[in-house]
Amino acid sequence: MSSPASPRPLTVALLGGGTVGSQVARIITENAHDLSERVGASVVLTAVAVRDASKERPGIPTGLLTDDAAKVAASGADIVVEVMGGIEPARSLILSAMEHGSSVVTANKALLAADGATLYEAADRNGVDLYFEAAVAGAIPLLRPLRESLAGDQVTKVLGIVNGTTNFMLTKMDEEGVDYDDVFAEADALGYLESDPSLDIDGHDAAAKAAILAELAFHTRVTLDDVYCEGISQVTADDIRAAQQMGFVIKLLAVAERAADGVIVRVHPTMLPRSHPLAAVRGAFNAVFVEAEAAGEVMFYGRGAGGAPTASAVLGDVVTAARNKVSGGHGPGESTYSNLPVLPIGAAVTRYYVNLAVADRPGVLASIASAFADNGVSIQVVRQDGHGDEAGLIVRTHLASDAALRATVDHLSQLDTVKRVLGVMRVEGEAGA
Amino acid sequence: MSSPASPRPLTVALLGGGTVGSQVARIITENAHDLSERVGASVVLTAVAVRDASKERPGIPTGLLTDDAAKVAASGADIVVEVMGGIEPARSLILSAMEHGSSVVTANKALLAADGATLYEAADRNGVDLYFEAAVAGAIPLLRPLRESLAGDQVTKVLGIVNGTTNFMLTKMDEEGVDYDDVFAEADALGYLESDPSLDIDGHDAAAKAAILAELAFHTRVTLDDVYCEGISQVTADDIRAAQQMGFVIKLLAVAERAADGVIVRVHPTMLPRSHPLAAVRGAFNAVFVEAEAAGEVMFYGRGAGGAPTASAVLGDVVTAARNKVSGGHGPGESTYSNLPVLPIGAAVTRYYVNLAVADRPGVLASIASAFADNGVSIQVVRQDGHGDEAGLIVRTHLASDAALRATVDHLSQLDTVKRVLGVMRVEGEAGA
Repeated sequence: MSSPASPRPLTVALLGGGTVGSQVARIITENAHDLSERVGASVVLTAVAVRDASKERPGIPTGLLTDDAAKVAASGADIVVEVMGGIEPARSLILSAMEHGSSVVTANKALLAADGATLYEAADRNGVDLYFEAAVAGAIPLLRPLRESLAGDQVTKVLGIVNGTTNFMLTKMDEEGVDYDDVFAEADALGYLESDPSLDIDGHDAAAKAAILAELAFHTRVTLDDVYCEGISQVTADDIRAAQQMGFVIKLLAVAERAADGVIVRVHPTMLPRSHPLAAVRGAFNAVFVEAEAAGEVMFYGRGAGGAPTASAVLGDVVTAARNKVSGGHGPGESTYSNLPVLPIGAAVTRYYVNLAVADRPGVLASIASAFADNGVSIQVVRQDGHGDEAGLIVRTHLASDAALRATVDHLSQLDTVKRVLGVMRVEGEAGA
Repeated sequence: MSSPASPRPLTVALLGGGTVGSQVARIITENAHDLSERVGASVVLTAVAVRDASKERPGIPTGLLTDDAAKVAASGADIVVEVMGGIEPARSLILSAMEHGSSVVTANKALLAADGATLYEAADRNGVDLYFEAAVAGAIPLLRPLRESLAGDQVTKVLGIVNGTTNFMLTKMDEEGVDYDDVFAEADALGYLESDPSLDIDGHDAAAKAAILAELAFHTRVTLDDVYCEGISQVTADDIRAAQQMGFVIKLLAVAERAADGVIVRVHPTMLPRSHPLAAVRGAFNAVFVEAEAAGEVMFYGRGAGGAPTASAVLGDVVTAARNKVSGGHGPGESTYSNLPVLPIGAAVTRYYVNLAVADRPGVLASIASAFADNGVSIQVVRQDGHGDEAGLIVRTHLASDAALRATVDHLSQLDTVKRVLGVMRVEGEAGA
């Protein structure tokens, strides 16, 4: 695009100077020439708001540091980048920036999942852009493709590995036979866990990302409270072994799907066939698998966290928002026209794995098969297995509603042929109905 | 984004009504409500130019069909979609559309790789958009992420499986031990080959896509003539077996890489470690693996061809171009500011696999090792192997220039200890220098 001889420089102000913020500052400085060519105007960093402005931050010129975040937000910069995290004061600062005419780029998944509507509304009212590629799956270009590339298609389902820490832990359990407690200790020692480990382990981090993905995929409002959430702390070495014997692997998945009369959004440990593209996503990597009517199956893979990868996603948004400032256009706004209800987890229809310790006597299989049949759940595979001195039975079902499966498990646990229900887990990624 | 109460409808005219065109027409009609909500104005199909307007086309209302492509191109539609393919008359029609104020969405990889500059220049001059997501890797949202999401980063290398037919053939050879001639016959019988099979087999289709990817990744002009190209017809069952024994798999890769003083763009059969994310891309699927300084490794995976998948990519571009018409903005233009030279293949530095039939007597390894050393190529692994009644030697090298490897192979073929050079292939995807 031809641009005027010397367009005015575009200004960028940064809220947050931690791991991500210092990488954003470094790249803006080091890549200044490329950024100005790609935007069509030079891009200048004007200020970086941090908690303690006296602390040295590698990559950030000392003169730009300030502890006055409110002043930075209200500085009228062309683009304000928020990488401080948390709900407040991040939300108030973003709203202030928009009121002062700044487009906003944020990596704040918690805020977007809790109250994205307020941000979108403010962006619309003030005629500025809101971009947040870094909020889900770090460096992976994912939200822009969902919002734009697939905008002419109908997304039917999204399956994502969006928390690197739990994927690291489950990969270790799968590949090295490590117990949950040991792998938790290792992740802790490596500094992989959030300061509140529950955000990772109990799936809350993944749930925030699931809400964001679901809203973009289905054009309907989804917040964190709408997401059903189960973490990985109940996954046992027994479950891992059973999965391996069946040719499956266990992943913590964020699932958003279109049902007949609404959408369902859920996070839980899931068994996937090893041939599924998501099954090969190891360690701290992230990937999101999208099923759409015309496109078929599409997958996005890459690093979900880390200063530089997250900064790459932030800078991509900065370039797009800056180009819009130059060309006078706008990015897409909130798209929630379809107003679909978010259905309760009981309405979710999936396959299941059920692992039972059973009495070792004739007639056991018949009584168990009856319990499934009585609750309308059809069995796909049964596998006899030993658990030390106990007899074991592993069942994989055909498609059944969550409600029917729960009733089945209640029923099973009351049978005198069933000693204990060792594990119950959803199964995704198998072909066919 | 709030839009005026009743913005005028946006018009879309289609050049081409074949497999892709009829799917585009179908989706515009079936998804009319969603499209209008996502664009902020209704989207109306006004005409479809085809060679024979009397032929019934499922999904296309008969009244829209015409054989007057020039009239459709010059109709002043908001968006003209070109899915007819080939250089002419596609180029003239696209230029006419732009001169009449239409933004253009095209899937025409051949035209873009041969003469993209002319299209960009016309788009810029006429103040319209040019989008072409469907030109590379069909349904996979890939070009938009490269042009926009990674716009703040520095891409260092792109590795792509971008031709589904050859990937289907190589997958069959790998998994079923089928010979090249047999798998060629099977692909032919299944209708997978282009009417000129050389486009697939000799890598020309992949080379056109490599040129487009390289230009976007490195912000420098790259045309088809700049791409070094080797097809798969020389890949033998022996090469496949040797790859398997070493834990590798053979893929036809499009590679675009940044070198110290330019870029190198090449298409050739390549050995990849089986642990590499691209190694798991089977059958007719496509995937593109991008290495960038800040983002690290990112991969995009999905269907590379087919009417509906390609139409999904076209429609994504239609929605974006339509939104720009509504908001008054523009998509990114050509970005070739870095003006890097495209270096000859001799400058490419990779690892190599060399498979030799050798004399079965003492001193053979010493003479062969000397030939590598004399040409400055360092050996990583040597593996003795039998080929029927011949002794065999498989060598994998450390990084070496293409020129040095060619000199080595010339040297080897003159040694009396070497009976024949059975195979030479580049190796990518190994970690380390």
